[in-house]
Amino acid sequence: MAITLIFLILLAGILCGETKYMVYNTSQSIVPGKLNVHLVPHTHDDVGWLKTVDQYYVGSNNTIQGACVQNVLDSLVPALLADKNRKFIYVEQAFFQRWWRDQSEAVQNTVKQLISSGQLELINGGMCMHDEAPPHYIDMIDQTTLGHRFIKEVFNVTPRIGWQIDPFGHSAVQAYLLGAEVGFDSLFFGRIDYQDRAKRKDEKSLEVVWQGSKSLGSSAQIFAGAFPENYEPPSGFYFEVNDDSPVVQDDINLFDYNVQERVNDFVAAALSQANITRTNHIMWTMGTDFKYQYAHTWFRNMDKLIHYVNQDGRVNALYSTPSIYTDAKYAANKSWPLKTDDFFPYADRVNAYWTGYFTSRPALKGYVRMMSGYYLAARQLEFFKGRSKTGPTSDSLADALAIAQHHDAVTGTEKQHVADDYAKRLSIGYKEAEELVATSLACMVESASKFGCGSSSTTFQQCPLLNISYCPPTEVDLSLGKKLVVVVYNSLGWKREDIIRIPVINENVTVQDSTGKEIESQLLPLVNGSVSTRNYYATAYVGKSPSSTPKFWLAFTVSVPPLGFSTYVVSSTKGAAATLVRQTLYKSTGSQNDTIEVGPGNLKLIYSGNGGKLSQYVNKRNMVEASIEQSHSYYSAYDGSQDLEYFQASGAYVFRPNGTFPIPSEGQTPITVLRGPLLDEVHQRINSWIYQITRVYKEKEHAEVEFTVGPIPIDDGIGKEIVTKITTSMKSNKTFYTDSNGRDFITRIRDYRADWDLVVNQPVAGNYYPINLGIYLKDDSTELSILVDRSVGGSSIVDGQLELMLHRRLLHDDSRGVAEALNETVCILDKCTGLTIQGKYYLRIDPLGEGAKWRRSFGQEIYSPFLLAFTEQDGDKGTNFQVSTFSGMDPSYSLPDNVAMITLQELEDGQVLLRLAHLYEIAEDKDLSVMASVELKKVFPTKKINKITEMSLSANQGREEMERKRLVWEVEGSQNEESKVLRGGPVDPVKLVVELAPMEIRTFLIDFSYRWSTIDRKVA
Amino acid sequence: MAITLIFLILLAGILCGETKYMVYNTSQSIVPGKLNVHLVPHTHDDVGWLKTVDQYYVGSNNTIQGACVQNVLDSLVPALLADKNRKFIYVEQAFFQRWWRDQSEAVQNTVKQLISSGQLELINGGMCMHDEAPPHYIDMIDQTTLGHRFIKEVFNVTPRIGWQIDPFGHSAVQAYLLGAEVGFDSLFFGRIDYQDRAKRKDEKSLEVVWQGSKSLGSSAQIFAGAFPENYEPPSGFYFEVNDDSPVVQDDINLFDYNVQERVNDFVAAALSQANITRTNHIMWTMGTDFKYQYAHTWFRNMDKLIHYVNQDGRVNALYSTPSIYTDAKYAANKSWPLKTDDFFPYADRVNAYWTGYFTSRPALKGYVRMMSGYYLAARQLEFFKGRSKTGPTSDSLADALAIAQHHDAVTGTEKQHVADDYAKRLSIGYKEAEELVATSLACMVESASKFGCGSSSTTFQQCPLLNISYCPPTEVDLSLGKKLVVVVYNSLGWKREDIIRIPVINENVTVQDSTGKEIESQLLPLVNGSVSTRNYYATAYVGKSPSSTPKFWLAFTVSVPPLGFSTYVVSSTKGAAATLVRQTLYKSTGSQNDTIEVGPGNLKLIYSGNGGKLSQYVNKRNMVEASIEQSHSYYSAYDGSQDLEYFQASGAYVFRPNGTFPIPSEGQTPITVLRGPLLDEVHQRINSWIYQITRVYKEKEHAEVEFTVGPIPIDDGIGKEIVTKITTSMKSNKTFYTDSNGRDFITRIRDYRADWDLVVNQPVAGNYYPINLGIYLKDDSTELSILVDRSVGGSSIVDGQLELMLHRRLLHDDSRGVAEALNETVCILDKCTGLTIQGKYYLRIDPLGEGAKWRRSFGQEIYSPFLLAFTEQDGDKGTNFQVSTFSGMDPSYSLPDNVAMITLQELEDGQVLLRLAHLYEIAEDKDLSVMASVELKKVFPTKKINKITEMSLSANQGREEMERKRLVWEVEGSQNEESKVLRGGPVDPVKLVVELAPMEIRTFLIDFSYRWSTIDRKVA
Repeated sequence: MAITLIFLILLAGILCGETKYMVYNTSQSIVPGKLNVHLVPHTHDDVGWLKTVDQYYVGSNNTIQGACVQNVLDSLVPALLADKNRKFIYVEQAFFQRWWRDQSEAVQNTVKQLISSGQLELINGGMCMHDEAPPHYIDMIDQTTLGHRFIKEVFNVTPRIGWQIDPFGHSAVQAYLLGAEVGFDSLFFGRIDYQDRAKRKDEKSLEVVWQGSKSLGSSAQIFAGAFPENYEPPSGFYFEVNDDSPVVQDDINLFDYNVQERVNDFVAAALSQANITRTNHIMWTMGTDFKYQYAHTWFRNMDKLIHYVNQDGRVNALYSTPSIYTDAKYAANKSWPLKTDDFFPYADRVNAYWTGYFTSRPALKGYVRMMSGYYLAARQLEFFKGRSKTGPTSDSLADALAIAQHHDAVTGTEKQHVADDYAKRLSIGYKEAEELVATSLACMVESASKFGCGSSSTTFQQCPLLNISYCPPTEVDLSLGKKLVVVVYNSLGWKREDIIRIPVINENVTVQDSTGKEIESQLLPLVNGSVSTRNYYATAYVGKSPSSTPKFWLAFTVSVPPLGFSTYVVSSTKGAAATLVRQTLYKSTGSQNDTIEVGPGNLKLIYSGNGGKLSQYVNKRNMVEASIEQSHSYYSAYDGSQDLEYFQASGAYVFRPNGTFPIPSEGQTPITVLRGPLLDEVHQRINSWIYQITRVYKEKEHAEVEFTVGPIPIDDGIGKEIVTKITTSMKSNKTFYTDSNGRDFITRIRDYRADWDLVVNQPVAGNYYPINLGIYLKDDSTELSILVDRSVGGSSIVDGQLELMLHRRLLHDDSRGVAEALNETVCILDKCTGLTIQGKYYLRIDPLGEGAKWRRSFGQEIYSPFLLAFTEQDGDKGTNFQVSTFSGMDPSYSLPDNVAMITLQELEDGQVLLRLAHLYEIAEDKDLSVMASVELKKVFPTKKINKITEMSLSANQGREEMERKRLVWEVEGSQNEESKVLRGGPVDPVKLVVELAPMEIRTFLIDFSYRWSTIDRKVA
Repeated sequence: MAITLIFLILLAGILCGETKYMVYNTSQSIVPGKLNVHLVPHTHDDVGWLKTVDQYYVGSNNTIQGACVQNVLDSLVPALLADKNRKFIYVEQAFFQRWWRDQSEAVQNTVKQLISSGQLELINGGMCMHDEAPPHYIDMIDQTTLGHRFIKEVFNVTPRIGWQIDPFGHSAVQAYLLGAEVGFDSLFFGRIDYQDRAKRKDEKSLEVVWQGSKSLGSSAQIFAGAFPENYEPPSGFYFEVNDDSPVVQDDINLFDYNVQERVNDFVAAALSQANITRTNHIMWTMGTDFKYQYAHTWFRNMDKLIHYVNQDGRVNALYSTPSIYTDAKYAANKSWPLKTDDFFPYADRVNAYWTGYFTSRPALKGYVRMMSGYYLAARQLEFFKGRSKTGPTSDSLADALAIAQHHDAVTGTEKQHVADDYAKRLSIGYKEAEELVATSLACMVESASKFGCGSSSTTFQQCPLLNISYCPPTEVDLSLGKKLVVVVYNSLGWKREDIIRIPVINENVTVQDSTGKEIESQLLPLVNGSVSTRNYYATAYVGKSPSSTPKFWLAFTVSVPPLGFSTYVVSSTKGAAATLVRQTLYKSTGSQNDTIEVGPGNLKLIYSGNGGKLSQYVNKRNMVEASIEQSHSYYSAYDGSQDLEYFQASGAYVFRPNGTFPIPSEGQTPITVLRGPLLDEVHQRINSWIYQITRVYKEKEHAEVEFTVGPIPIDDGIGKEIVTKITTSMKSNKTFYTDSNGRDFITRIRDYRADWDLVVNQPVAGNYYPINLGIYLKDDSTELSILVDRSVGGSSIVDGQLELMLHRRLLHDDSRGVAEALNETVCILDKCTGLTIQGKYYLRIDPLGEGAKWRRSFGQEIYSPFLLAFTEQDGDKGTNFQVSTFSGMDPSYSLPDNVAMITLQELEDGQVLLRLAHLYEIAEDKDLSVMASVELKKVFPTKKINKITEMSLSANQGREEMERKRLVWEVEGSQNEESKVLRGGPVDPVKLVVELAPMEIRTFLIDFSYRWSTIDRKVA
């Protein structure tokens, strides 16, 4: 017999306990005298990241990441039904709506009950958890509205809680606009700077009252809580299938019984959190990315924890939601520290500033911004034509744009195939919206009546690749007698004059307005570099080589009424043709004292003859004169190889430079100047992969810089992040200003944070901020402003200097999960080259105090460029259109200069959603930072407003109801000053005038009574 | 504006399809004209492997392996309820019963319905899926019975299907005894030799009729199917949460719609399998280890596959079970190839023979075997005393033993901590059974009446570590007047005389039988080596150093009636004491011609004077004389380092030797001979880690070899597998015989397989077989037999030679999942040394045709050693017991020599389970391979059999009903010869005589009518 393994373990009883079915007491609610641990079961479901949104939903492509949202929601229903005390929150409506459509009526009814009972609470409630850096506030509002209105319509509920747990820093606009103004009672998030977090833990100030807007002040503040660590459970309390946290083993008949041990762990974790939290309420976020695939596993363990922890009695554990938690905090009747401004930039540890993603995937960022403006215009045209139940709508584009706001979408922090998916969705949405726009315009140009639209014979084409001079409808041979008709739509509420440009193949062309009057135009030859870019990218994106190559840009001035269009005709001429620019090549051999002056109007840019560098900015009108330089540099990307503790390369998220290197102009550096009656252009070929055109328009007082950057060379094995720097001698005293999601400007001070004593370890990356609208700095006399055409990162690293990061190409992953280097390429068949980025920024110097007007007005024009539609016609003069000029507004009216119409949309139910936004902050401009008024009767001259209801920002509840319900929080050491805040008053249903205070956005649902108005007319 | 990523993909319609809730048609049943793909949803839940059974059940220790059986069963219920066409099989009752106990009555009722409707089918139905190599057939029967009776009692159903999908080779006993004899209609498994499988695929003979028993022939054959690959789904059809098979994406509104692609994959996989399968039915095993943690994910995808595949129509897909599949095969009314013998050894590819596990963890294997015999005896004593509802029972030991039969338990292929868990469970079960045995014996020695038992004053102690001479109750100083009383229980049905030995500290001791008569005894000094082993292991296992050290083994002959006990008294004496052995040390310096003859009886072993090696075996009675040698070698374990294609080291599963190395006797190699009146012992210290004692008893005609092997040295970095070889000059012509699970002997021919032309790539490992009872070979005149005390691996690599692998210590994992090297150690505090194994084998040479008697009778004695219980008493002569000798049977009766009682057990409901086994095969012995009869009235002389029902082997249905229902399969090219098979006839309820044909095991449930018999007596 063997020497046997005999364990003389005295386990009498272990194997002879009686077993019976165990019922857990989970009914505990808040207990006043105790530490209440709010267990908040949740899942965080990225609307695309490592997999596409659809792949996440159905659970495909699991080799990349095991994740299936369908499982989460499928398994949730029985788990909640099994115990009415269990609760769950769900956040991302893009997933929820996919799932909802798949369900049987029985399940749908069950879910309605679960939502109505509060067991399942839909919070945040946008289509995605949008990011807070690259998205534009209009996109944030739109995607939130899309989710909120679905929730309202289907479940008749209104989300109460902001839940931005994953985005990489938090914006002021999120807090006040997408928080307070949508009626949220609180806002929670996971990621704030590690230094900030440490101090807040010390001071128990992770939870604050956040006043995100100077202008709206206390009227738009919100209770905001940063989590102590992240949005996951305390260590050891993860209960997903196959997770390795110890399950609560309470079966005395089995080995490894661990109830007391687990209760002790629970109490210890609770007390530790209580130590850094005010009041006797703490929240545990019980879940994380794509968890609850089998919800039962979490609830089974939480049931047991609640049961045994409450039996133990040291702390009180309960199923909760952020709403319940918020109410408990509110009921504590405490005052809270005040937080202003925002939580940017975000570093999760030393040397890890998440400021690279402000620029990552600049092409996608540009595409999103272009689509955003297009979507706004398309909805207007849909409104004018009347929403069609069968025809094309803007809904696909709405969905695609909503999803693109996700914090791993427009951020550029997704895998390449996922970025492609977002672009594909945008493209599909665009194609439908393009059709909608074409049919709407066709209808509008053909129909004399504004009520109704038959089938139209006009076919409009549009050119989404116009930026690279690819526009087949304009590239037609006009010498054969065809006319090219261009309809120019202006989605702004102001009349607008601007220069548009289209590629043409003929030299002898002329432009007429809709009255047949010839207008001045200018021809600019297409340079070789841009033709090759055009042909490469058009082939890559359209799938075949362009059939023709235009020779020129034809530029001409158009003038378009507010919310309206004008028509222009381009035709061949033997008479007065467009002016061909004079072209001068300046070699770098000129003497140092030679200068080159550029600009046909007030603005003159002076370049040095030697080297052709920009040296001076002169505005002849207001006599602003400033020395100015413009240069390019790159940051070499750190590869992490020397890191001892944490590997940290520069990557999709993190910007970690390893030195700054100027990019000199190569060779003889000629600059070429093209001069014409409308505009001058300065062409600079910096090197083989940076090309720059600076435009000075006769009628504009800013310079427009179009840059073409790429493919960034990586043959040295080093990733590079390309910046342009504008340098002046202004004494800006470390201070500069960047916008919050394209809206409020926030003061930034280099190497400084208002909330804590900053330890500077990344003097560049740690001073980067997201820029959606622009960046500026000032000194005693002037302001230097730069506006951008998409979201980028930027800073002022040196006094008087602004910089923008234009493009990034990296060779290492930055260890935040995406597991790809951000090395974008564009391929034709199997041949790929590094991505080239073409974009614009705009530069202006104003006398101190005068910059805001340009930033705000022109900023709006950048967001909403003219929409161009093309068709060919025969015949001589003018067009065949019945209507060749149109304005949606009363011809005598336009919106005030400080107001923009950011939404005009006919909803599915026929109601019209209108949003008006004051564009200025308090004290931003001496004339325009005042209450503005909009006369709705003149905005909608042909329609009768039957009913108008002011709504919350996301249009899911009446504003009045929202104001009544929303919790008002006490701020530590101060009285609330709501009385001082300026806001527009109620809208008189007869006068129909909307007042807007600085930074105010007002949202209305309007019933136009078409029928009544028709009847009225008949009766009248 | 950026160069935008525009995909002009024409996906019109993709995003505008109407969505509605999808209902899948899963109701398809078999379609005659088509290929029917039987989807069999299943999970394979190891009852311990990388984690312990309890850890697997609750889902703890997931760092090792993500697995939670609770999830499987929890999630299964709603998944089956969701669609009545869905089906599932569940196998392992150890898990199912744990789960069942946890459920609410509501869930229990639902499960009953699901089982009764056939949606949930319990198949195989033992507590575990036992292995088929190391387990003893009695253990296999017991563990199957435990599961089957639970299923019968709770659900009133009888499993129909054998499902041994994972064990590493398949035994004849499994097929005929645990298959046909438990009433199964078919048996399925996954693992057969890769060469065999290839041929069977070619010949479409993966499915056969398997006739596992020569003796029972066609009466115990079964339809058996080996799977084409393993027990998993076809590649690409895995649907566990997070699995990476493509899910069926049938939502036209989302991207990646793949229905047609998936249907094509399905059809292709089905046709491929159809190509190697007879009839138009194929089975897909839809699941694998620990899958269905969220059952919904599998069923959702299978629903879709069935729906769309049947829409496609090329093949017919249906939810099925192995029962439905079996019935479909049967209905095809075909005949099938005949398979005899077994499927050992198993290689899954070249150089990968799973024959190492036949020996892996020899200590655990020994412990299991010891507990198996003890459990048999304990149940007898429980029966005699009467089962107590409160008191100790044998149930824990039953459970522990059942689980230990699992194919990663007694196999030794589990992780170390799991092996420890099995041992712990056995130990706990043993402790309770030990108490049961002690109280039963106490009751029996004290009570004159055999009906009932009061509280008893006698306290019996037992010595599970007696093998290493650790036995505190015998290690008492008898010189002070105390007597040591030894009760010797014999669980066999025959009277039995044998020598027992106990450690004592006194020299002057004497032994008396229960009548006070002094009997001959012999003292053997404890040698140094065994004392140090004793002290080390007793300390390691008991947790403290032994307080005393015995000086001698006291050996004496006991004589015990069948199913009964005798009592012996050991006391101090000043008169005739036990004989101290004469001890002679033989140096290796003797001349070559000197010989040493050992053995006080007929058997003489002759050792050479020079070297002290065994040279001859002589039996003076029957004049058998044979030259014989015995030696040790080791196989150096291959480390896989030179493997190019597949890494294959020798490991827990796989035996892959890298050369054979003789182990020479070290130094002067003295042999020491101890001679006494009862037995002689030859002590050989082969080297510092092999010690061997060979015993020759006066009254026995076999040699007993006790080996102590270990710690196996590994300081050379090489794992070693230690064998002993017995070499004769017999001309065995490559042929030898090994038992199947301790029952039928199967002919083995070296380097040969009956079923295919073997390609020999491992001439040693590929000829290894599991040995539970013994191994033998023969030539024209003699038989050489070795019997073993536990399961080991063995072979005959050279004609005339047998070898056993005694111990293995390995340094590499063999890549079959266990991920540990099989390097067992024993630790005291933190100091660990390699495990030492102590065990025995028995050797005998018989005239040709006479070996079976010894192998069968003595084999049964090895399995059921005497059970010793000790107590101290005062007084002079004899014992205080009222009953000092007992037999459960009529004093005039014992079981026939060819019959063993393998089960006698009072069940919870008071019925008694009786199993009688014929021990001989047909033609095995000229006298004993005949029909035997057992007179139950004499077996139970004091009880009246009110009712006796013959049952299936697992006692879950009447034998008659079983025979009526069981499917009879046609064998290709032969008529069934059932008529020729010999079986015992029905039991006459009056005569109560049970007939047993060779190899027959008959199972009965008996109602003893205690009351009636009492009444009868009164009336009489």
